[in-house]
Amino acid sequence: MRGTDASILALSGGVGGAKLCLGLADVLPPAALHIASNTADDFEHLGLTICPDIDTVLYTLAGVSNQRQGWGLEGESWQVLAALESLSADTWFRLGDRDLATHLWRTGQLAAGCSLSTLTAELARRLGVTARLYPMSDDRVSTVVHSDEGDLPFQHYFVRRQCQPRVGGFSFAGLAEARLQADIVALCRQQAVSGVIICPSNPFVSVAPILQLDGCWQLLRELRGPVLAVCPIVGGRAIKGPAAKMMAELALPVTALGVAEYYARHYPGLVDIFVIDHSDATLAADIQMLGMEVRVTATVMQTRADKQALAQDCLQQVLG
Amino acid sequence: MRGTDASILALSGGVGGAKLCLGLADVLPPAALHIASNTADDFEHLGLTICPDIDTVLYTLAGVSNQRQGWGLEGESWQVLAALESLSADTWFRLGDRDLATHLWRTGQLAAGCSLSTLTAELARRLGVTARLYPMSDDRVSTVVHSDEGDLPFQHYFVRRQCQPRVGGFSFAGLAEARLQADIVALCRQQAVSGVIICPSNPFVSVAPILQLDGCWQLLRELRGPVLAVCPIVGGRAIKGPAAKMMAELALPVTALGVAEYYARHYPGLVDIFVIDHSDATLAADIQMLGMEVRVTATVMQTRADKQALAQDCLQQVLG
Repeated sequence: MRGTDASILALSGGVGGAKLCLGLADVLPPAALHIASNTADDFEHLGLTICPDIDTVLYTLAGVSNQRQGWGLEGESWQVLAALESLSADTWFRLGDRDLATHLWRTGQLAAGCSLSTLTAELARRLGVTARLYPMSDDRVSTVVHSDEGDLPFQHYFVRRQCQPRVGGFSFAGLAEARLQADIVALCRQQAVSGVIICPSNPFVSVAPILQLDGCWQLLRELRGPVLAVCPIVGGRAIKGPAAKMMAELALPVTALGVAEYYARHYPGLVDIFVIDHSDATLAADIQMLGMEVRVTATVMQTRADKQALAQDCLQQVLG
Repeated sequence: MRGTDASILALSGGVGGAKLCLGLADVLPPAALHIASNTADDFEHLGLTICPDIDTVLYTLAGVSNQRQGWGLEGESWQVLAALESLSADTWFRLGDRDLATHLWRTGQLAAGCSLSTLTAELARRLGVTARLYPMSDDRVSTVVHSDEGDLPFQHYFVRRQCQPRVGGFSFAGLAEARLQADIVALCRQQAVSGVIICPSNPFVSVAPILQLDGCWQLLRELRGPVLAVCPIVGGRAIKGPAAKMMAELALPVTALGVAEYYARHYPGLVDIFVIDHSDATLAADIQMLGMEVRVTATVMQTRADKQALAQDCLQQVLG
């Protein structure tokens, strides 16, 4: 691995991405890890601005996330939710008490005119997170899920309807007008990152909004360092979330090859290295035909050691 | 007392007003009590719209208020506040978990386009409150306290600075453009109320915004039924809150007579009956000189029976 001045930009959605970010944070020196977080599934609920992916990454890196549940905080209490239920209020989005404090603080600060970037950095500081976490944009981008139940805001599809509707595609409202977060732009323009790691997040609703934003993927492709993507599909299944179900509904092959083909078609020349699990080793040759190097390794992250090992492996590929 | 079709409009601020409203609700038939609540101390905090006076009246009538504390809910928990503190967030306004649920629900519904009137009625229904409670307006009015520390938003003066600054006066931002709540206007125009009771609330910051709003006091003066005011100053002191301190700083006599003079000067001909405590009986003659009938009774409400007795007494005066 190159010297300790190596700096990595990771692109992350929620749970799966956060796991690899934690591994990267463990093995990289402080301040060497920059994370661009998807914000297209942010939404307004009960007057609050909620940023699920930012919070999942923050809580995971701070060591306070509820790992069994996959969202929210460990040891959470539910006093407010119980009171909302007794008021017959909307409670399909489960807001824990400590989690609510994050949303309240952020919403109040946004109302006072602070940018999401500033607030994300400040929240990281208050939670003791040393990695640099950025929202992909300070402008609002909102995923719309085109489904057999009509167009649904992302959280309505994902949480309220538990991914049950069949999807036909996605669009990102506000994307055309949104600007890529300024620090991410500066890191890229100044060639200040040694490489990019696309975390094993959902390609369609977590990674796509970041890549499609404001020329982001073209900017990443122009970097001197390589772009590595970790495949979120292992053995034809998603480790977590609806990626596999979405691929089937979009008539894509539900395999690591299907994911690689998706990246190659939509972002040609972007991904230099594609990381797949041992169980998908037989797909390596076909993926190489797409012009990507393939790294076969253990990509399922259950333990902290798994996360660190995958992070080390990715860094080895990226930094050489 | 007149027949059971008698209908009363009460004007109320927070704690003191809510006590008399509870007494009135106990002794009047359901649906005979209409309450216009001050909203000029409503404010935005952590992105939430908070309506302290509406909530104090609602919680009091629903029997869930914290009477010892004077605000908030009985048996409240503080999980969110503790988490906000650990985030070093603003916690000068003490938000309990169950109370927060009210603010969240309301803020979400306001964002969805519901009026504060509709939400207040719905919240009353969900809490089992049968009295009709109206915000004084669906438009935003905000008390500004002119003080020796400059102009302060009301809750900053009241809660954050604990009424310590010396006041020089008050203004009500938005008052000139705000409309009196439509049901209150209709009740008055249709002479559908048998009388008005101005609760023993702060004359300057709780009652004044209601009376000064959109010709309200002139509308009340034109009613066929009488207007009765219960004096919030007893024996030269306020039962609760900064009314006495404010009077001293405004160079008004800190007495029941001072309050009566204030009403007579600013709302001439409005108050027909002025209710004072036994301890202020010697002031009755001077108050009568202002053109008001004076009723001397026990106005300090400690027990539920105290509240009911004062309510009965007021109704007797108003309904004859």
